[in-house]
Parts: sequence; structure tokens; C-alpha cells
Amino acid sequence: MKRDNNGLKIPQKTNIFKAKILDIEAGKNIAIFNEEDANNNDIYLADRVSMKHGSKEIIAIVDTSESMVKRGEIAIYKDIADQLKTKEGDMLEIVHIPTPKSLDYIRKKMDRGFLSEEEILTIVKETVENRLSEGELASFISAAYINGFGINETVSLAKSMVQTGVTLDLGKGPIADKHCIGGVAGNRTTLLIVPILAAAGVYIPKTSSRAISSASGTADTFEVFAPVILPLEDMRKVVLKTKGCMTWGGAINLAPVDDKLIRIRNSLHLDPKGLLLSSILGKKKAVGAEYLVVDIPIGRGAKIQDETEGKSLANDFIQISEKLGIKTRCLITDGSDPIGYGIGPGLECLEVMKSLQMKDGNELREKSCLMAGNILELIGKAPVGTGADMALNLIKNGKAWKKFKEIIEEQGGNPNVRESDIPVGEYRFKIEAEKSGRISHVDNKLINKIARAAGSPKDKGAGIILHCEMGDKVNKGDTLYEIVAESESKLSFAIETAKAIPPYELQKVILGKVE
Amino acid sequence: MKRDNNGLKIPQKTNIFKAKILDIEAGKNIAIFNEEDANNNDIYLADRVSMKHGSKEIIAIVDTSESMVKRGEIAIYKDIADQLKTKEGDMLEIVHIPTPKSLDYIRKKMDRGFLSEEEILTIVKETVENRLSEGELASFISAAYINGFGINETVSLAKSMVQTGVTLDLGKGPIADKHCIGGVAGNRTTLLIVPILAAAGVYIPKTSSRAISSASGTADTFEVFAPVILPLEDMRKVVLKTKGCMTWGGAINLAPVDDKLIRIRNSLHLDPKGLLLSSILGKKKAVGAEYLVVDIPIGRGAKIQDETEGKSLANDFIQISEKLGIKTRCLITDGSDPIGYGIGPGLECLEVMKSLQMKDGNELREKSCLMAGNILELIGKAPVGTGADMALNLIKNGKAWKKFKEIIEEQGGNPNVRESDIPVGEYRFKIEAEKSGRISHVDNKLINKIARAAGSPKDKGAGIILHCEMGDKVNKGDTLYEIVAESESKLSFAIETAKAIPPYELQKVILGKVE
Repeated sequence: MKRDNNGLKIPQKTNIFKAKILDIEAGKNIAIFNEEDANNNDIYLADRVSMKHGSKEIIAIVDTSESMVKRGEIAIYKDIADQLKTKEGDMLEIVHIPTPKSLDYIRKKMDRGFLSEEEILTIVKETVENRLSEGELASFISAAYINGFGINETVSLAKSMVQTGVTLDLGKGPIADKHCIGGVAGNRTTLLIVPILAAAGVYIPKTSSRAISSASGTADTFEVFAPVILPLEDMRKVVLKTKGCMTWGGAINLAPVDDKLIRIRNSLHLDPKGLLLSSILGKKKAVGAEYLVVDIPIGRGAKIQDETEGKSLANDFIQISEKLGIKTRCLITDGSDPIGYGIGPGLECLEVMKSLQMKDGNELREKSCLMAGNILELIGKAPVGTGADMALNLIKNGKAWKKFKEIIEEQGGNPNVRESDIPVGEYRFKIEAEKSGRISHVDNKLINKIARAAGSPKDKGAGIILHCEMGDKVNKGDTLYEIVAESESKLSFAIETAKAIPPYELQKVILGKVE
Repeated sequence: MKRDNNGLKIPQKTNIFKAKILDIEAGKNIAIFNEEDANNNDIYLADRVSMKHGSKEIIAIVDTSESMVKRGEIAIYKDIADQLKTKEGDMLEIVHIPTPKSLDYIRKKMDRGFLSEEEILTIVKETVENRLSEGELASFISAAYINGFGINETVSLAKSMVQTGVTLDLGKGPIADKHCIGGVAGNRTTLLIVPILAAAGVYIPKTSSRAISSASGTADTFEVFAPVILPLEDMRKVVLKTKGCMTWGGAINLAPVDDKLIRIRNSLHLDPKGLLLSSILGKKKAVGAEYLVVDIPIGRGAKIQDETEGKSLANDFIQISEKLGIKTRCLITDGSDPIGYGIGPGLECLEVMKSLQMKDGNELREKSCLMAGNILELIGKAPVGTGADMALNLIKNGKAWKKFKEIIEEQGGNPNVRESDIPVGEYRFKIEAEKSGRISHVDNKLINKIARAAGSPKDKGAGIILHCEMGDKVNKGDTLYEIVAESESKLSFAIETAKAIPPYELQKVILGKVE
């Protein structure tokens, strides 16, 4: 008979179980007990237990089994076993853990309360430690979406993300970053801004995302030039050597809590502003950014429809950044149609190469220089009103292109890459104008859907080449855009998609009729 | 190469997989694919797939494995295999299914919209079919909690529960039911009301719950007399023969959606009023109830603190019941201290037996007769103001006790049960008054905690015997209450608990001081 702290006899329970390892990646920590063992230990389905092996400890959610797991055994998934450094047959100590404190705080948020910095840090820590179930996290996100997240709560969440993730410490400066809230096809400004700034002597340790619903993400596109999956230490080396990098954010643990939250946000398409802002700014803080320019595209087919909404978001960005010690400028840009003409990884790479070499790609170059110029002015590297020119000069004098190739080399790609090295699909189809007129709209969302149907971003050579843009006059039979695919079947699928959801609209005289 | 509906060639994908059965009760439908198979079929973690085997079809959430599941195999848990009637090695057809419609409706509720009957039915159906993840359901519950559920939404939810569950069709009447919103220790009125009404010729097919956080649930207590886990058909037979029954609601599928929702509500202790009311009234509708009396205990230590809140809840009950075709009366009762003196399954049984035989248990008998009387008046069996007397007469003339034993026998228990057959723990400890005074409060929540520490409701003989109630004058050293346990260790644990959270309070002259 054991005794508790007061010397009181307490009912004896087995708490040592033999590990049985299931080779399943469950994506969450689950511990499976024999049903009788569970009953005898007052452990129930969906309870939380801590499992200890040596110095390692992990929190898992309980499942039970009638016969696959024998008495005295505990079955765990491979991902947990790896984290616990446990082999089949090792003995694990199991401790029933108390209800997470977060549940009170989530409840408080549901009841329209405001959470303190400490309360938010607790939620973040317990999330990272897997103490919260999928349902509990979903409740937190729902509450944040419905009741809103205040400025202070958002700052606390960003700080907690930094505190519980890894950080990049360059020990140098100035460090700048850029961000685009997304939604515009072909908007590959990062691939120009990074080499421009690095060539201007500014550190820009840029991490980007892969596409979720768009044709391609910055990481998907730069991957054509060089590996983007770099451990933090390698990323640090690239930046210290070249001043810039273009890596995939998902490869480093900048904000592990964010990955868990995003996974749940995606299924309901919930983007509570507070979570979105803290996720973006927390990651900028984690790489040490001191200066930031944010691109907020607005317009029909973009994520944000009108200027009022765009300005309100810009104000939030600036207020929160300030509290995090990041000097930020937001640019409200025209997001009503795609930027540039290449959509899809390979096609975007070709446009970036031409744009950086003053061959072609004017629209992309102009926007990138405007953005880079704003950062140069913000830092004080360029007098007000001259930043864009300074950026353009760094392209014209070849320094940005040279820097671009340097970064490619340091990330492990081929610095002597030629346009003919870039994959472009062989299966092509031109979509022609069905009548003459002026183009009034090119829809970003529909362009993205057609490019994805063609295989982008998985098939690096797939995508769309835009032949016309908003405002252009076309005649019946002129090519509007071209679909590019790596296989006949995907090309056919994209053509069908294009017919079902035409992305180009011609100007109409009568917009509607009321009778 | 396959062709789609338009005769278009589409990329060929394998959709037949060989079943590998894992003997795990996961409590949810999971399908584990080999990682490469998943990638090739555009299936990702947390996606939904439909699995078909013969005429059976089940929706499952996707997991992946690197090597335990071979290419061409799909691993499923035992609960799914049973439902699909699948054996190891059977071939399953897998179809990637579209996003559930419910997600739009859940989002609508988050955006403060009101859901139509059809939208709610869709959410309920997709929940029952396992098309929604734990996180999505949690978002729905959170939205209902934060934004509230309107009367019409609540009625729709109750109707949807009836439509997607099983129903009891007795083909006889009148059919009555009772409900208590809970929170009062020892409140075992059901065990008296059922035999009283059945003896009066009223059908009362009563299902009850087990304890979640209280010392004992009605089902836990009646289980001492007879089995309470009865399939619906057996329950029907008992009711047709005796007019009454006392079974555990969890054993029949009255509202499968409710079980799923409750499981998620519990972790955050969320009781959105709309979900609570539809859950209660949907189940009453499912057993065919035409008349209903609801006990709403209020007061310190009860679930509801004051009369205003109690009356508001009563109004909701009546409005919603009316739309469901149930004639309902609500009784606001004193819930500020326990009812009766026995707390815990066995001790409550003894009190019920004495109470039904006019030996003892006056308080429990009086409340039960008042409630049963209200039902008799509602049905028109007793003139207004005489129901409680009619109920008391059915106890005095022995008919209720005879009926009680009849029901025990039909449910498979021993009708000749004697007080000495009832389990009562041997380990006892008396808690004495530390000073003299008048008892001002006996806290239900704390009494429940101590009884649970003593082993109740799992240990049928464990619990508490109350020696005094609110208003009694006691002298220092008088016994306030007695803890009863089946083992020395649990008795010690309960004594420690009792010392930490004393449930009895004496009247004070000065209630607070402000300086």
C-alpha cells in the first residue's frame, strides 16, 4: 500500500506499462490501453495521460482496446515512440494528469472575456505539449473568431509563439522582412525583393509558405531553383553569407503552435484576424525582423474587397507590430487581377529570371521595386521618394541578379541556371476570346483553380500563361491565356475546368436589369 | 484510362484496398492508408473518405502510415470493421467524398445566423454518419454556446434527434415522463414517481442517466435492484406489462447525435441551453411522452442560483415542448441542500424502500408525491389540487410498492429484495460538529465530491448518510454525517476530502466585514 503526501494510504494502481509500438503516423498523440487496465486505473476514453521514458515525457490522449493490447501493455504510435525514444518492450511510466488550465481560459474567451498574457501563454504551451484535444483547440479558435481577439491578446499570442518556438539570432542588422496577405496569382515579388535588399546590404531571412489553394506558393516556386527545406542552422549560414534566403517556413519550428492551430482553422476556413496577425507577426519576430513591409492587395477576386477593410487591417498590423518592436509599413495594392503573366512554379521562375535581367516582366519588376523601395526608405537606406529607384538600379546594374544566383548556390541549387533548365509542360491549349471587347476582369480565384487542375504546384511545369490583362482590347479569336500541363489527362481536366469557370470577363454596357 | 461523365479522360487512381483490421476501439472512424498510396490518390491527413463493402458504407477520417500498412492495404479499427461487416483481407472500395455541407451551416451559426430546420437536420445527419471531425463539432457547439440557439433552432434540433434515432412506439397511452435538471444529491424521486404513476394507470417509459460528476445517477442506483441495460425491445416489453420501467438511457440509441455532442461538450463543460433543451426534450419525444413534469431545483450549490433564471428556463421548456406536442409543467424546487439522507447507490436504495413502505424517508416521499401529483393533474387523472394526495394514497395502500417490485422483476431483478440484500460498506466514519449552532447550508456539490471520494457510484455500498439538514440546531460533537466506504483506503481518502472541503456550514452573525 502506497502513501500520499499526508502519509495517507491510497489505493494502489499499476502505472508501469510495456510499450507496444504501432507503425502509424496518427498526427496526434494517442495512448491505447487494454480496456480492463484502463477501468482499473480510472482512465477513460479521451482522458489525458503523461507517459515517461527516461528523461522524455509526452502527453497523450487515451484510447482503449479489448484484445489487441494485452493487460500491462500500452500501445503507442510511431511518432510518439520516436519522440519518447522508446523501443518495443520498453517500460513506460504512466501518470494521469490534471485537466489543463487552458480549459478555463478558453471558457473565459467564450464568455467574452479578455485573456491576459499569462493565460494566452498557458494555452500556447499546453497546445504545444499536446495537452489539448482537437475539439478543445477548435473551441478556442471558434471563440476567437466569434468574439474577436483584442490588440493586447494578439500581441500576447505573437509573443507566446516566439517564446515556444525556435528563433533565428543573426547578431547582425538591419533585418527586414516582407509579407503579402495573398490571394493574387503570379504575385512572386519575394523572389525579386530578397535579392534587391540583400544587394543593398539589408538582411532578409525570408521564409515563405507553400500553396494551400493557390496555383503556387513562393516556396513551391523557388524550389525549382534550389532546395527550400533547410534546417534553421543551414538557413542561418545562408543568410550570414548572402544576407538573404528563400526557404519554406514549414521546415523549421518557428511557431509550432501555429501549425496546430492552422490545421484546425483550415477545415472550417476560419481566419480569426487576431490569430492571423499573431501568426504572421510572431514568425517575423522569430527571425529577428526589425523592419517590415506588408502587401495588402484589395479588389474583386482578392482576399479583401475594399479599401476601408484594407486600411483597418493595415492599422492593426501597425499597432501590433509596434508593440512587438517591429517598424512596419503597409501598402494597399491593386489585387483585382493577377500580377505578371506566368502562373505556376516553372512559368513564374521564367518570368522572375527575365524580370531580374531587365528582359521582360515589367509589371512584376515595378511592383517588387516599389515594395523593396519602401523597405529601404523605412530603414533609412534611401531618402523618402527614392527607394523604388534605388531598387530598380540594383536590378539594372546586375547586382540583384548576381545576388539571386548567390542565394541559389548557398541553398544548394545551380547558380548557372538557364531559362532552358526550367520545367515547362509540353501539353498546351490556348483559350481564345469568344467575341471582341475590352477585358473588364481577370479573376484570381478562377485562374488559380484552372492552374491547379492543370497540375500546379505539384507538377512544376504546369500552369497558365496570361496573354492579356484587365483593360486590354481583344478581338474575337485572340488568345486570352494558355493552359500548360505535363500530361494530356491533366490538360483535358484543366480545359474542362476553364470552360466551366471562365476567368476572363469582357466589359458589358448593361450590367443588370430591373423590371 | 477512365473517362468521366463528359467522356473526358481522367487520371487513373486505385480505389480498391485490402482491409487490414486493427483491434482498437478508437471511438471514431479512422482509415489508415500507406503514405505513398495516399499521395498518389490525393488523399491527405484528416481528409474524409467513404469506404464501401457490399451494401455497407462508412465515412472515415484519414490517417497515414509509412510501413505498417502496405501499399494496396487500408487499415481500419475494429469498430469500423464490425459496422462494415468486413473481415481481414476483404476488398473495400474507397471514394474521396466532398466537404460536408454542414461546414457552411456551422460557419453561418458562427456568423450569428439562424439555422433552418433543414440545415440543422443536415448537421445532425452528417454528425451521425461521422462526416464531421471532432474539431468541427466542437466549433458547432462553441458557436451555439456563444451566439445562442433560438427556440425554432432548438425545436429543429430536437426533431432531428428523433428523426435520426430510434423511437419507442407503445401504441397505448397516456404516456408521461419526468425530468430533473439535476445537481441535488440524493434526489431519487424517479424511483417513487415511476411506480406511483404506473400504479395509477399511466405509462411512464423512463430512461435515466448515470452519474457524471454526482454521487450517483438514477440508473446507477436502480441498478442495485435490477439490470438497467435493456435493449429497446426489452424495455418495450417491460413497459407494456407493468406500465413503467427504469432503464439506462445510454443503452438504447434514442439520440445517437446527442451522445457525440455530449462527449465533446463535457471536456469544456459547455451546456449551451439550446443543445441541453433539445437533448432532453428530443429524448422524451422519442419515447412518445405526451405529458411531462420538469423539476428545476434552484438555490446555492444547485445548478441554477435564483428564481428568475429558473423561471426563464421553465418558460423555454414549455415553449419548446409545446412545439413538439408535449404538454409540460415545470416545478421550481428548493435545491439548496440534499433531498433525503442517503447519498450513494445502496444508501439511496434503502431510503427508497423505506419511503415506499411508509417506514421512513418522509422528505423524499413528499417531493415525489408532489411531482407525481402534478403529472396526474396535468393528464386529468386527478382534480386540480388533489394529485399529491392521490399519489400518497397509492403509497399508503401498498400499490406503489407492489408495482415497484413488479418492475424490478420484469427488468430481471429480485422482486423479493430485502433491506439486508442492499450493499452498504463496512468502513465508516462519523464527522462531528466542531461547535454548536444552527446549520445554515449543506452543499450539494461538496457532498457529491466526498461521496465520490468514498467510491460512489462504482462501489455500490459507498456514500454518505446525512444526520442533519439545513435549519437543524446541533451541539458540538453531534454527528453531522457519516461516510461509508467498501475499503479502508477509500474511506481514508474520503475523510481527507471531507476535511479539505467541509460541506456543512453553521449560521454566522457577521457575514462579512468592510473597512
